[in-house]
Parts: sequence; C-alpha cells; structure tokens
Amino acid sequence: MIQERLQKLRQKMQESDIAYYIVPTNDYHLSEYVGEHFSARRYMSGFTGSAGVLLVGMDMAGLWTDGRYYIQAQRQLEGSTIALFKQGSEGVPPMEDYLKSVLKDGENIGFDGRVMPASQGCDLEAFARAHGGRVIYDRDLVGEIWEDRPELSCEPAFLLEEKYAGETAAQKLERVRQAMKKAGADYHVLTMLDDIAWLLNIRGNDIACNPVFLAYAVVAQDCVWLFTDARRFDEGLRAYLDENHVNILPYNDLYNWLAKMPGDASVMYNRLKINYAICRDIPEEAAIIDCENPTMLMKACKNPVEIDNLIRAHVKDGVAVTKFMYWLKTNIGKIPMTEISASDYLEECRKAQEGYIEPSFNTICAYKANAAMMHYSAGPDSNAVLKPEGLLLVDSGGQYYEGTTDITRTFALGPVSDEIRMHYTAVLKGMLNLANARFLYGCIGMNLDILARGPMWDMGIDYQCGTGHGIGYLLGVHEPPNGFRWKRVPERDDSAVLEEGMVTSDEPGVYIEGSHGIRIENELVCRRGEKNEYGQFMYFDTITMAPIDLDVIDTKYMTAVDLERLNRYHHQVYETIAPYLTAEERQWLKEYTRPLS
Amino acid sequence: MIQERLQKLRQKMQESDIAYYIVPTNDYHLSEYVGEHFSARRYMSGFTGSAGVLLVGMDMAGLWTDGRYYIQAQRQLEGSTIALFKQGSEGVPPMEDYLKSVLKDGENIGFDGRVMPASQGCDLEAFARAHGGRVIYDRDLVGEIWEDRPELSCEPAFLLEEKYAGETAAQKLERVRQAMKKAGADYHVLTMLDDIAWLLNIRGNDIACNPVFLAYAVVAQDCVWLFTDARRFDEGLRAYLDENHVNILPYNDLYNWLAKMPGDASVMYNRLKINYAICRDIPEEAAIIDCENPTMLMKACKNPVEIDNLIRAHVKDGVAVTKFMYWLKTNIGKIPMTEISASDYLEECRKAQEGYIEPSFNTICAYKANAAMMHYSAGPDSNAVLKPEGLLLVDSGGQYYEGTTDITRTFALGPVSDEIRMHYTAVLKGMLNLANARFLYGCIGMNLDILARGPMWDMGIDYQCGTGHGIGYLLGVHEPPNGFRWKRVPERDDSAVLEEGMVTSDEPGVYIEGSHGIRIENELVCRRGEKNEYGQFMYFDTITMAPIDLDVIDTKYMTAVDLERLNRYHHQVYETIAPYLTAEERQWLKEYTRPLS
Repeated sequence: MIQERLQKLRQKMQESDIAYYIVPTNDYHLSEYVGEHFSARRYMSGFTGSAGVLLVGMDMAGLWTDGRYYIQAQRQLEGSTIALFKQGSEGVPPMEDYLKSVLKDGENIGFDGRVMPASQGCDLEAFARAHGGRVIYDRDLVGEIWEDRPELSCEPAFLLEEKYAGETAAQKLERVRQAMKKAGADYHVLTMLDDIAWLLNIRGNDIACNPVFLAYAVVAQDCVWLFTDARRFDEGLRAYLDENHVNILPYNDLYNWLAKMPGDASVMYNRLKINYAICRDIPEEAAIIDCENPTMLMKACKNPVEIDNLIRAHVKDGVAVTKFMYWLKTNIGKIPMTEISASDYLEECRKAQEGYIEPSFNTICAYKANAAMMHYSAGPDSNAVLKPEGLLLVDSGGQYYEGTTDITRTFALGPVSDEIRMHYTAVLKGMLNLANARFLYGCIGMNLDILARGPMWDMGIDYQCGTGHGIGYLLGVHEPPNGFRWKRVPERDDSAVLEEGMVTSDEPGVYIEGSHGIRIENELVCRRGEKNEYGQFMYFDTITMAPIDLDVIDTKYMTAVDLERLNRYHHQVYETIAPYLTAEERQWLKEYTRPLS
Repeated sequence: MIQERLQKLRQKMQESDIAYYIVPTNDYHLSEYVGEHFSARRYMSGFTGSAGVLLVGMDMAGLWTDGRYYIQAQRQLEGSTIALFKQGSEGVPPMEDYLKSVLKDGENIGFDGRVMPASQGCDLEAFARAHGGRVIYDRDLVGEIWEDRPELSCEPAFLLEEKYAGETAAQKLERVRQAMKKAGADYHVLTMLDDIAWLLNIRGNDIACNPVFLAYAVVAQDCVWLFTDARRFDEGLRAYLDENHVNILPYNDLYNWLAKMPGDASVMYNRLKINYAICRDIPEEAAIIDCENPTMLMKACKNPVEIDNLIRAHVKDGVAVTKFMYWLKTNIGKIPMTEISASDYLEECRKAQEGYIEPSFNTICAYKANAAMMHYSAGPDSNAVLKPEGLLLVDSGGQYYEGTTDITRTFALGPVSDEIRMHYTAVLKGMLNLANARFLYGCIGMNLDILARGPMWDMGIDYQCGTGHGIGYLLGVHEPPNGFRWKRVPERDDSAVLEEGMVTSDEPGVYIEGSHGIRIENELVCRRGEKNEYGQFMYFDTITMAPIDLDVIDTKYMTAVDLERLNRYHHQVYETIAPYLTAEERQWLKEYTRPLS
C-alpha cells in the first residue's frame, strides 16, 4: 500500500519536474500537536510516531526520526521500501544535509510550503537556486493523491468570557496595535493558533488536548482579517467578531490575500513561527519586520483574573489527583489495576470537576521501569499490571475554563528500595529548592535551573531534559517563552526573563533505565516581591495542590529547611483540598499531609 | 596649568584640522592597568582616577567618569574649565553620543589610534565619514605637547622556567600555529600583554602588579616577530628567543610592519582586543580572521604543573595571611593599627615567603563602613584607625613564581552585631555552596552563580557585582574567559564554559552602605569528575588555604551540610598551614580552625 502511494507520488513529482519531495510532520501553523488532516507523513510512510520527516526521490525514500521511535519506525517501515535514517545517531546526516548531498545541478525540490518552516524552506531555496534548480512549494502532492483524506477539522468555537480571560479582545488588540505602531508595521501576520485564540478570547477544539481553532489572522490598525472556516462560529460569536472589526475570510485565502497586499506595506511577523509559503507569498517589495510576536509575552504573563482562575483550576485538579491517589493507595493489591485503568480512573476524577473540558495532554501513567522512559505511553501492547510494590509515575493535566494544569506525582504502590527513597527525596528537595527561590528581576531559567537539578548532580545523575516549561491559559501545556533549563536550546525558545504572572512547571526527576522513574511536578506563578536598593526581587507561588507521597521520602536526606518547606506545602494542600473530600478521604489526607520531622 | 595644556592641545588640533580630540585611559594593549607613560588623560585633565575619557573641542572640554569617581573628579577638575560628565547618571549621554550630537558636517575627530579600542574607533570613523569628515588617528597630540613625559617602561624581563610554566614556548607556539592553520591564517597579531607573556614564557615588570612587558607579537608558521624594546632582554633571553625563532623589532615598528604586509595575507586577530591603529594599518586587501585569540583558552586552562605550583603558591600565601590574622587578632587594641599599617604588615608577611615577587593588585584593607565601598582604597586622607570592634575586610594577593593569588578575609576586631553575624554567615554559606558544586560539563558561570548569591537574595540583599573572576598564572589577577556572574556582561568576556584547569575566584559578599562590608574569597580549580551515561561531571578544588574567622559565624544559620563543609575546609587549612607556623601561632590556628557544631 505504501509502495503504491510512493509510486503515485513519484508520478506527480515527475509531472511537476520535482526530483525530491519532502513530507514533514507539521500543520500550517507549525503546531506542537497536529490534527488528522495533517498526517500526510503518516499516510505516505505508514510510520505513526509524532516526529519525523519523509524524503522521497525518484529512486529512494527515507524517513528521519529520533531515538524515541527507532524501534517503532523500523517495524512500521518494513516492506515499504522506505529507509530509516536514525536522526541523531553517529554518522547519520540530517535530512537537509542528505538532500544537499544527492541533489544534482538543475534539480528541483518540492514540498507543500504551508507545512515547511520558513527558515528551513529559505535554506533549501537558497541551496537549490545556487545549483540551478528551485523549490516548488505551491503543490500539496500528498493531498492530490490522498483519497479519503480527513477533512480539515471545523469544531465549534466558543467565547472565553471576560471573567475567565481577564481582558477583552479589544484591549488585547489595542496592546498589539501599540506594538505594531512602535515597530512601524501596517500588518501583523499571526499564524500560531494559541496566539490567535488568546488574542480574540476564542477557543476551539480542532486539535486534541489543545483548545484552539484552525485560523490565520492578519491584524491591521482598524480591523483584523481572520482566515478560518466560518461555520465554526455561532451567531453570537459572529456578532462578537463583527463588533471587534474582525472580518472572516476562508481559511486558505490567506495566501492570495498576502500576495495581493499593497507593495509598500510593512509586515510584521516572527519568521521562526511562520511557514515558508507565507514568507514567499508576501510581495517582495513589502518591508518585513521580523520580530517576536508581541502576543507571546503578553500571553505568557497571566493577568490577575487569569491567575485567580488558575488557582481555582488547580484546586479542582488537586481534588481530582488527591481522590485518585486515595483510590490508588487504598485499592492497590485489592482490585485489578493497569496503567490504562488507573489513568482512566484519574480522568473520571477530573471529569467530576465542574468546568473541566479535556486532558491537556496524553496522560503518562508509567509503572516501574516504564517510568524511566520519559515519553512512555501505555498502549494495548504495553499496559503494565499494577501490583502492590514499586513506583507509579503519573503525569497528567486538564483543560478547565479556569486554565490549563499539568501535574506529576510518583506514588509508592508498596515497598520500594532504599535507592528509590534516596532518589525520590533528592527529586523532592530539588523541586522545593526551585519553588522557594528568591531572585532579582532579570533572571532567566538558566540562572535557577541548578536549584532543582543540583541534588541530582550531587549524586552524579542528570535528568537530561529541561526542569520546566511555560504553560498556557486554556491553551497549550507547553508555552514559550519561559522555562527552566541549564543549557540554552534556541529552538525551545524558553529562556525569557521571568516576568510577573508567568506560569512555569518545576519538574525535576530521576530516570534509571530498566529500574524506575521519578518525577514530582508543581506549577509556579512568578510574583513580584520586595523592591529595594538592590533591585526588584521576585519569587514563586506554588499553585499545584496535591500531596507528595510521604511513603517514599527518606528524611535522613532532608535538612531542616527541606522539611519546613515540605510541611508548609502539605499544610496548605490539606487546608485547600480537604473541604472537597469525603470524611474518609479527608482522614486519609490528614495522614498523607502530616508534618515530617 | 591644565588650561595651558588644553590651549596647546587645541593649537595642535587646529593645525591638524581636528575639531574634537579624544584622550582615553588606555595603553596600546588595552590593558586593565596601565603604566605611567600612558597617563595622558591624567596629564591633560588633572583627574587621577583609574577610569575616564577626556574629550576636547575648540570651545569645550569634558571628562566622562563613573560613579566611583564623581566626587574626586569634581574636586580635581575645579578651575580646569573641563566639565564633568557623570557617566551612568540619568540624562548624561555617553561620550560617543555627545560627540556625535555636536560634530558638524565635515569636521574631523582625532585620537591616538593606539589607545583607542578598534570597535570604538571604527564606529567613530563610520560616523565621521557619513558626515563628510574623517578620523585622524596617527597623531599622538598629547605626546607632542607633553614635556617630561615618563619614558616607556623597559624593566628587565625574565624567563619563566619550565618547572613553573609546565609547557615550553615551543609547545605553546605549536598549539597556536595549529589553531592558525585550522583558521587558515598566515599571521596572528597578538597585543594583549598577558597573551604574549604566556606564549613566550617570559615575564616582565612594566605594569605595577602585572608581571608583563610592553610588546606586540605577530606569529607566523616559521617565526615570531616580537615588537619590544630589546634592552629588557639579557643575553640568555636573547639566545632563548633566537632558539624559538623570535625576531625582535623595535616596539612601535609594528604599525609600519603591518602596513607593509603582503596584500594577500590572511591575518587573525581578536577585534575586541586590539587597538584601532592596528585595525587600520593592516592593508585593506588582507583577509581578516576575527576570532578569539587561541591563547585565551589555552592560558585559562592551567596545566598540571601550573596547578601543582599554584597549590604551593597558595600554601605560602595562606601562611602569610594566617600569620597576619594571628598578628591582627592578638594585637588589636594593644598596639596602634591603621588600615595602611595593617596592610603593610600583611605585605611583610608575604615578602617573607620564598618566591614572592609583588602584590597582584593594590590591597583593599577596609575598616567598618569603608568596606561597604567595593573599590575602597585607603589613602593619606582616609586611613582609618583600627579599634577592637567591628569588621576589617582585607582583599589582597601575591605574584609568586608559582602563580598568582587573590584572597579576601573579613575579620572581627572585637564585638560585632547580630546583623553582621547573620550577613557573614550567609556570605560563608554562599561561598561554600559554590565551592562544593558538582555539575555537568558545559556549565558556565551563569548556571552556578545563584549557589553563591542565593543566601544573599534570600535576605533581599545583592552584592551587585560578579561572584568571581578568572585568575592568571603569574599574570593578571583578572583573566578571561571564565567567571561567575548571574547576568551576562559581554565586555567582561567571562562566560566561557568551565573547563578543567580553569582557576576562578569565589567571592560573594554583603555591602551595607555606611555600616559594614563582608567578603570571603577562595580560589577554585575546576576539575574533571566522574564520566558516566549522563555526561562528564565537573567539580572544584579549593586551593586558597587560610582560616575563615569563626568569631563572626552564627551557627544557628548553618545547616549540617554547611557545618560539615566548613569543618572539612578548616581541617585542611590546619593540616596544610600549621607546619609553617611557630608553636604559638600553631596553637592559635588550632583554635581558629576548630570544628563547629
């Protein structure tokens, strides 16, 4: 089947004089998660992983994917004639390098410019041009041969009321327009779905776990053009958009609209966040202002209403997690449980909360050694049975009208080793260290990361990923530009100065291959503290409210300061969560939030 | 007198068609400290501070200097007709901005290109050109009018034997030449005096506290041209240089030599480290390779012989500081003491050490509130009398054949307040935190700074400077590219990855204006630790060996970990230093390095 599809694609390529065609794993908005309509790479290769790029030539086809997917890809590519390129392995060239090494003079490179990041497309364009060829970017060849392709999602959108958003779309537009004026921009092209949802106070349901809707926006001083399928809006929303001078145009009309833009226009966009087709379709004479979208920082700094709501969302989420923990701790070994049934139970607990919409990402519920794989996801083939021993790591979160949550707890289901207790206590110390940081305004995540990571480094262990990420408000669970990380990773875009109102996760861990995985994650709101002759001090408030499993702590590794921090947190957890529990649960929580000494 | 000098300068300016003449505080090598010959700005303005720039126009003269010198400059400029521009004060434009705002079309800017940093000179050149003028950089107008100008220093140089340097000049040259080949450079222009001294294993005495000699060097594959006054070399050194194919040419011949370079040469230099005249005098056709000098990183990573020597130097230095502390503690209130007499006594203690050459910087010996001024230096007008109360901060260091030292201790001369004890203990905790860091290879100072600074931030206090700087080997006490700092300051050039063998100071502090100043400084050698699946772990060895005054510590602020670290350090101090003391001193040291609990 795959071979047949490749055959059809190659025919289309030949007709269009394309020597190599690239099929990335993106939607038109370079979203972290994409809808079914955009699974072109999966359709063409049979590989179902969340990351990878397919390159098809006349007599070759290769799939590049990373270490998480080597085994799966190997299996799924069998018999497809597609070669697996193990991205990141020694001696394996990146796709672009490979392509550059095989492309002959005069040959053309093809791809759908809407799913190609602008920078990568421009790079390929320059290379092709320098060798007498060109890029052909205005043909979606996979779309042309794809029968039964899923429609573009067009789920109903809804207004996020001011009591949730804390600021009207008109006020947000005013702030963006001020930034445009300052930069001298006539138009601002916005393509990130969360930017658009935030700006207009509208949410949708076109991507699982991400309450966004498929749209592009162009902001001008007196109006907004919103390119989207208008059927998603009811009458009320249409009137609302009209009031805000938002003109609705069909989704894919953006490209023609851009091409017909006045030649003397000045256009603001973030080249790192747009697709190549946008970049190319804007008239060459237009003055480009390439800068960060002003929405990014505005969206990251939650306003007081959003923060109040978030705190409420976290109470609900904490109640759900606490009830789940009670169920887990009191039923383990008594009733059958698997990773999937446990995570289903947690979802039930969340669903019982008013204002809960959906999970904010696919729950990671990983038992014992499974938890050592950071991106583990239980499936029919790998659904471990839970027994009254070892650790269960549960990383989950919810989308509520009051905001987005993300929490990890690691539970002992029975006896655990001394080594596990030592590792768990180090993770806890690190998490508490960072949560209790006090620092001068101007710090970025890199300044603070060692507070969380230090206890692991002291043991000669590293968790090999960032310590935390920014979180949206009823939006993406990974939201730039804030984060905690010790080494800058430019494409992560998470090293902004920590500003008042930013929400960042604090989730150090220990992952011992074949043995166990531990992660404890709370979310932190950045607050403004004392301002004095030394500057503006900042600190964090922890808004995640759920017990940290005392059964795994070894107090011999804790200082008086560590203990005081943990006890203070648990006191707050009890006071906050207890009112929403049954008498039995409350009694149990009292025990599980008891002060340690 | 100053007015007369300005008059003469203006006459010269008029003759040369120069509208504005700039007199910076630099030597030809952009050294941190400069010799007497290079005190042109002082000669022209009467202002004796260590930082500042003079701008002279036909009907204006202005001196820019920073906050440390406002008061002094105001006094010294009185009656000179030179206006004081308080650099860094609100509304005061930087010198360059001021100059650009007053320069009329077609007017020329003048300066001695040898004392002007290349980047600043190029910026002024571009501005002048854009306005129909030019820069005139080949006239040292101050030199032309300066009668009795001190000669260029030409102190005897000496060979740093291999037992001290650990690597021959030939080996070092080989490494530099490899780097040149890799970069495709025919010539490498070196002007930093410490680079040249390091590369050739030669030291001199042309700048106080800095055992360097005035020279420029150009390295080629088969020889080195060394531009310097040859009289400084004895016969042995001349033979040594000859063996290493080092050709000596007169100091200021560099500029002609560069101008006559083959037009197709490729020249490597670090534009941030050279003067404007060099930049201009290299033929325009030459291919410029602007990069970090390879010597910088090589010099910063001390070799095993250097480190062994450094440890020996620190034992000597520790013995001197311990003997000083004994004298101070046992004599305070009994014999007269002042800041200057105390610092003289310390110098005597160092002089008694074999292999001691000179101080590595001007000792800071600051009593009580004086210590709150970070750049305080006692003088005839401000030489506080020491009494048996309050704190004395002593920051000092030595140049030994075995390396350069830098140590700060803060001593109680009698009773101190509870607040001081709290501050002192926080500084100590921070210093120990950083010294005991364990971290993955790839960390820079920014990752670790909070370990030292955190205890101060926790109190809402900041020391408003870096936590530590790199240190040379019988070279500058401030040596890039390593350091500890929370915010990047590009011109400090101290944010390199921490490499094995780098030596960095660890010196947090508390400075309370009008009350007290506390700093505790040890030097740390970066070491390679365990390498495992997580990467290469690194750690520090503390090489400074002198007691930390127990009289000021309040153990109620110390955790068990803090106490263990302090006690371990003091045990090592006693074991290392005691053998070099008298019986009385040894008895006293035993008490002052006793374990706390």
